[in-house]
Amino acid sequence: MSHITQKAMAAIKEAEVVVGYTKYIKLIEELLKDKTVLSTGMRREIERCKAAIESVKSGKNTVIISSGDPGIYGMAGLVLELLSYEGLAEKVDVEVIPGVPAMCAAASLLGAPLMHDFTVISLSDLLTPWELIKKRVKAALEADFVIVLYNPRSKKRKKHLSEVLDIVRQKRGGEVPVGVVKNATREGEKVLIKTIDTLDEDIVDMVTILIIGNSQTKIYGNFMITPRGYR
Amino acid sequence: MSHITQKAMAAIKEAEVVVGYTKYIKLIEELLKDKTVLSTGMRREIERCKAAIESVKSGKNTVIISSGDPGIYGMAGLVLELLSYEGLAEKVDVEVIPGVPAMCAAASLLGAPLMHDFTVISLSDLLTPWELIKKRVKAALEADFVIVLYNPRSKKRKKHLSEVLDIVRQKRGGEVPVGVVKNATREGEKVLIKTIDTLDEDIVDMVTILIIGNSQTKIYGNFMITPRGYR
Repeated sequence: MSHITQKAMAAIKEAEVVVGYTKYIKLIEELLKDKTVLSTGMRREIERCKAAIESVKSGKNTVIISSGDPGIYGMAGLVLELLSYEGLAEKVDVEVIPGVPAMCAAASLLGAPLMHDFTVISLSDLLTPWELIKKRVKAALEADFVIVLYNPRSKKRKKHLSEVLDIVRQKRGGEVPVGVVKNATREGEKVLIKTIDTLDEDIVDMVTILIIGNSQTKIYGNFMITPRGYR
Repeated sequence: MSHITQKAMAAIKEAEVVVGYTKYIKLIEELLKDKTVLSTGMRREIERCKAAIESVKSGKNTVIISSGDPGIYGMAGLVLELLSYEGLAEKVDVEVIPGVPAMCAAASLLGAPLMHDFTVISLSDLLTPWELIKKRVKAALEADFVIVLYNPRSKKRKKHLSEVLDIVRQKRGGEVPVGVVKNATREGEKVLIKTIDTLDEDIVDMVTILIIGNSQTKIYGNFMITPRGYR
C-alpha cells in the first residue's frame, strides 16, 4: 500500500461508502473500519459502478477504488460513462484521483524501459476486435515504439500472446529485451528480464505487465534501459 | 504535493542528500530541513545525476527527485545509464520509486481519455529526429490510438505542434476532442477540452500535456471520455 498517494488515502478515509473489487478491498482493509463496504467479484465492474452511483444518489460520500491508476483500463471511464448515460455527469460532484499505473510500478522494477515514446496495448479481446489489437502492435513496431502489454494472457486466451510475440520477432528480431513483471509491488511480485526468444510464455498471466523494448533498449546487468539519447 | 506516494515521501525523509531541478526542490521545501540539497537549473540533468552519483560514492543516502513518474521522460533512465557506463549499476544500491505520471494527473482532470490503447510521444526533437516523431504520430493515427503529447510546444519550437495537428486533422478530422492540461495538480493549473479545430495553439507550452482522442472519444459536458466498449 506504500504506493498509494496521500490524496487517495485521504479520500478513502473521508468516505462513508467504499466500493471495489473484493481483491483490492482486502488490500486496504485497515482503512475501512466503520465504513460501508460494497465489494464484488471479477468482471462485475458495471455492477460496482451502479452500486456506487446509487450510493451517491442517496447522499453518501462514496469512493470507488481501482488498482494502479483508475484512468488506465480502470474504473474512471466506466463510472463517467454510466453517469453520462443517466445525464448525471454534470450533477454529481465526481472527482477522478490519479494513481501510480501498474506499468510505472513495473517499469520501476525493471529499471527505465519507458524513457522514450511508447504505446500501451491491452491484449484482451473481450471488448476490442483481435484484428484491431494486432494492427496496433504492428503500427507500434513500424514506428519503433516501446510496447507495454496489459492483460497479455489468460488460461482461456493463450494464442494471442504467441501471435504477438511472433509479430515482434519478425520485425524486431528475437534479441529484443522483454521485461516481465507480475504483481508489481504486491505479494507474489516477480520480475524478469528476458528477450523475445528466451521468454517462457507459461509464466505470463492476466496480472503480468510485459514491456517490449524498442530498437535501442538494452539490458545492463539487472536493468532494462531505453536510452533517451543523451550519449 | 498531495499526489506524492507514501513510499516517495519516506525515501525523501530518510535521505541525507536530495538532488533535483530547482523548481521541483521548491515544491518539497518543507521536507528538506537539515538535509544537503543540490539543485540545478533546467537542462542540467546530467550535472544533477553526476552530483547524485558522487554523493552516493561518498556513502551518503541520496535521493534524486523527478516530477511525475521518474520513469517516463524522467530522471530514472539517465541515472541508470550513467551508473552503467561507469560499471556501477550493479554495485550501487539503487531503487526507482514510481510516481503518478503527468499524463495520468492530466487525464484525471479531463475525465477518462486513456481508457483504451494509447501512445505517448514527446514532440521535443532535441534528442529525437523530427522525422521519427512524425512517423510515430502517423502510426498512432493509423491504428486509432489515443495520443498523449509531452513537450508539445516551446517558444523556439512552435511549428512542430502545428504540423502534428495538421496530420491529425487529415486523418481523424477536425472534430476530434483534444484535452489540454497545463500544470496539472499544481499552481496555475488549467484544464480545457477542445477539438483539433478549436484548439488555440498559443495556450500550449512545454509544461502542457495534450491528449488527442481516438475515433471513439466523446465529450460529455465537462468530461472527455474514451469508452472502453462496455455498451
